[in-house]
Amino acid sequence: MSNLTIKNQRNLTMMTDLYQLTMMYAYFKIGNHKSQAVFDMFFRHHGEINYAVFAGLAQAISYIKDLKFEQEDIDYLRSLNKFDEEFLNYLKNFKFSGDIFSAEEGEIVFPYQPILIVKAPLIEAQLIETAILNIINHQTLIATKASKIVHAANGKPVVEFGLRRAQGPDAAVYGSRAAIIGGCKGTSNVLAGQLFDIEPKGTHAHSFILAHNSEQEAFDNFAQIYPNSCLLLVDTYDTLKSGMPAAINTFKKLKEKGHKPVGVRLDSGDLSYLSKQARIMLDNAGFNDCIIFASGDIDENVIQSLSAQNAKIDVYGVGTKLITSNAAPSLGGVYKMSSITINGVEEPRMKVSSSLEKMTNPCFKKVYRLYDENGMAKADLICLHDEKLTKPLELSHQTAGWKKLVLEDYTARELLVPIFKNGKCVYQIKSAAESAKKAENELLKFWEEYKRINIPQIYKVDISAALKKIKNEILIDLS
Amino acid sequence: MSNLTIKNQRNLTMMTDLYQLTMMYAYFKIGNHKSQAVFDMFFRHHGEINYAVFAGLAQAISYIKDLKFEQEDIDYLRSLNKFDEEFLNYLKNFKFSGDIFSAEEGEIVFPYQPILIVKAPLIEAQLIETAILNIINHQTLIATKASKIVHAANGKPVVEFGLRRAQGPDAAVYGSRAAIIGGCKGTSNVLAGQLFDIEPKGTHAHSFILAHNSEQEAFDNFAQIYPNSCLLLVDTYDTLKSGMPAAINTFKKLKEKGHKPVGVRLDSGDLSYLSKQARIMLDNAGFNDCIIFASGDIDENVIQSLSAQNAKIDVYGVGTKLITSNAAPSLGGVYKMSSITINGVEEPRMKVSSSLEKMTNPCFKKVYRLYDENGMAKADLICLHDEKLTKPLELSHQTAGWKKLVLEDYTARELLVPIFKNGKCVYQIKSAAESAKKAENELLKFWEEYKRINIPQIYKVDISAALKKIKNEILIDLS
Repeated sequence: MSNLTIKNQRNLTMMTDLYQLTMMYAYFKIGNHKSQAVFDMFFRHHGEINYAVFAGLAQAISYIKDLKFEQEDIDYLRSLNKFDEEFLNYLKNFKFSGDIFSAEEGEIVFPYQPILIVKAPLIEAQLIETAILNIINHQTLIATKASKIVHAANGKPVVEFGLRRAQGPDAAVYGSRAAIIGGCKGTSNVLAGQLFDIEPKGTHAHSFILAHNSEQEAFDNFAQIYPNSCLLLVDTYDTLKSGMPAAINTFKKLKEKGHKPVGVRLDSGDLSYLSKQARIMLDNAGFNDCIIFASGDIDENVIQSLSAQNAKIDVYGVGTKLITSNAAPSLGGVYKMSSITINGVEEPRMKVSSSLEKMTNPCFKKVYRLYDENGMAKADLICLHDEKLTKPLELSHQTAGWKKLVLEDYTARELLVPIFKNGKCVYQIKSAAESAKKAENELLKFWEEYKRINIPQIYKVDISAALKKIKNEILIDLS
Repeated sequence: MSNLTIKNQRNLTMMTDLYQLTMMYAYFKIGNHKSQAVFDMFFRHHGEINYAVFAGLAQAISYIKDLKFEQEDIDYLRSLNKFDEEFLNYLKNFKFSGDIFSAEEGEIVFPYQPILIVKAPLIEAQLIETAILNIINHQTLIATKASKIVHAANGKPVVEFGLRRAQGPDAAVYGSRAAIIGGCKGTSNVLAGQLFDIEPKGTHAHSFILAHNSEQEAFDNFAQIYPNSCLLLVDTYDTLKSGMPAAINTFKKLKEKGHKPVGVRLDSGDLSYLSKQARIMLDNAGFNDCIIFASGDIDENVIQSLSAQNAKIDVYGVGTKLITSNAAPSLGGVYKMSSITINGVEEPRMKVSSSLEKMTNPCFKKVYRLYDENGMAKADLICLHDEKLTKPLELSHQTAGWKKLVLEDYTARELLVPIFKNGKCVYQIKSAAESAKKAENELLKFWEEYKRINIPQIYKVDISAALKKIKNEILIDLS
């Protein structure tokens, strides 16, 4: 087995909540475990974030493909004294046999719309809930945070630097991949680079300076080893009094030898003031094309604030606040039953709640994105899976029934694509780079108002008249 | 290879920042790569959290033991066109040959004190920085959050439920283990249970109710399958009007058959009001020993607030806010050089900063916890590694030199224990349960004032007179 295969291989079958297994056992004993069930994954809201960049599908697909209870797992489950041998025997041969529809990685998705739908025997759909949520909640969270940061950087490249502060190895490695999908142009994480074909970036740390007798000696040594990729960290002692003059000194020697120095990195202090002063010093020394790379506690709000002050920063390195989605470190996606077949009859299901926003949409559904004549996104429509779109088309608000929108003309695109069909994967996983391209392209189809960092306009995610009718009937039945 | 071995086996050698490799290459070419270096890991502060519960050592030890650049890794690094064959050949045989001292898992640790010290050839100490920080930052963060939540619960059990909201599989699995070290009494995570010998917990979800024609039918079915572990989730439709009466109905039938129902779980709504009403309903029906389990967006502040209102909750299930350490999702631990041997002379190193709290302590050091005559912790002392403790003992504040403390009498315990000696692991990893016991015992030695949830008293972490002298000399030299 090759090393990369080992690195990628993770049997996460046992990574589930115990209650999935106790429910599966109960279904198995009751005999309704093969009932066809439909579950929707969606998220409700996420801090001030209006849109999300969907990610995690690649790992979710591997998880489903690799599902297998090994003998040791069966032995462990037996030791819990909760399950009988008939059930354990069933698990031994467990395979996913259902259908999955999902947004593609890089798709722009919104609260309260299905982003992944599982249609499978109840017992199978139940097992996979936890891992699917874990994987997609995490990666969509980070891709979304990256997208916001990249949007704030307004064309200046953003590099992901969060490995040491990520919540464990997966959070770092899959977080790097998600950050690329969200628009970052590189990562410091070598393993993520290797696994996902992303170019890793990095030069040196403060310790490189401390390992020498002086900053100048350290810079000169570094330049000698990397004459054509010389980016120097200038804040170990004093950025303007010591680091910048020493760096410029080194750059002059490089230039004499015919090399082109890359630039300097600032990692502390007031990045606005220091970048302006560093720019002047570089320009005065004739290094107009040397870049200024800035890092240190940066997020989308810091970038907006630095830009507003005309900080002279060319590239941003973003760590902790990106890789943990600091201000809102979980997406909160859920997985809710929308239909179940009982005695051969498909019955719609919805969660009713005193809190309107916690109500779910019943039935096996699909989602369309509707565009205006200029190709700009107008609204998303959640409708029944077999519903045909009409012109004109009536869209209703999900909870406030009196809020309607009628579209005379539009083009439509389905958001969820088939991933598994009868347990077989029918989808070709896209690379991080392809998914990043998709996110970039799709975002262009949304007005800036929806992408504002603070208090963005809310994009419409409505339901069809047919879905609204079924929803109302259930509510009347229950009340 | 057994399945559990595969699950545990992770070659994380390549999980490092690229700059570690570029620095290693530079050291290798300059020829100072074998210089003996000392690095301290410590954290500065973490939200309002005064103390931390150290965790992550078990995974960090595995990481060091499993360090190996495979042929595919070498090939990948060659493809980056940054390194020569001599260096790649060196990497092929790379092994850690140094010493590591660390706090044990479950140890109570504080900001600004070394919690792990690496003494190794510069090139080796540099490589391992990133993964060590990733692993220990994450697990210490979660163990600490768990400790705070468990402390707020004041003796009522807390169960970890965060798998679906964790930042990827490792964050869930190692997060569960850290939560146990911090004091949680169980986890929903079956894989964590299997890997770390923790009892997994769980009963059923809303979907189990929705898979039936009625709540009553679902409860009766569940009780039939699990007559002796029947804990029912009562908030699918209406907790007090529908869920509780149906649960009590089911419990009565169980009781008639000689079984003892466990209780009910509340997962939404006002947990204070609902728990009080549910308690009355259970008591009136003769189920005084049925427990009320509460979950849903709970953290240490919510628990304190519920307790203040006398909510009738017996067990807490805590998810998102624990497993992501919601309010402060990163610990921010750093790894700083404190000494380097240049031309055979060991030279102290420290980072000097205009920000006092960013200054580091130079030299190869050790840390003592000092106790008073009653065995209560009085202060921690950071001193030189070969320093002997005297009586009386003078302790100095780390930055405010005029702040001193003289202890006439005390007992002392060293906080950091040898983990690796000349590259060989000399430490026996403790189980999560053992480390939890350690944390529980150690916390008893701190006054409640240090453990208060909001604005706790700051525990003294001081330096010795000898260390202070060296620090002052360096500052005078540099100024």
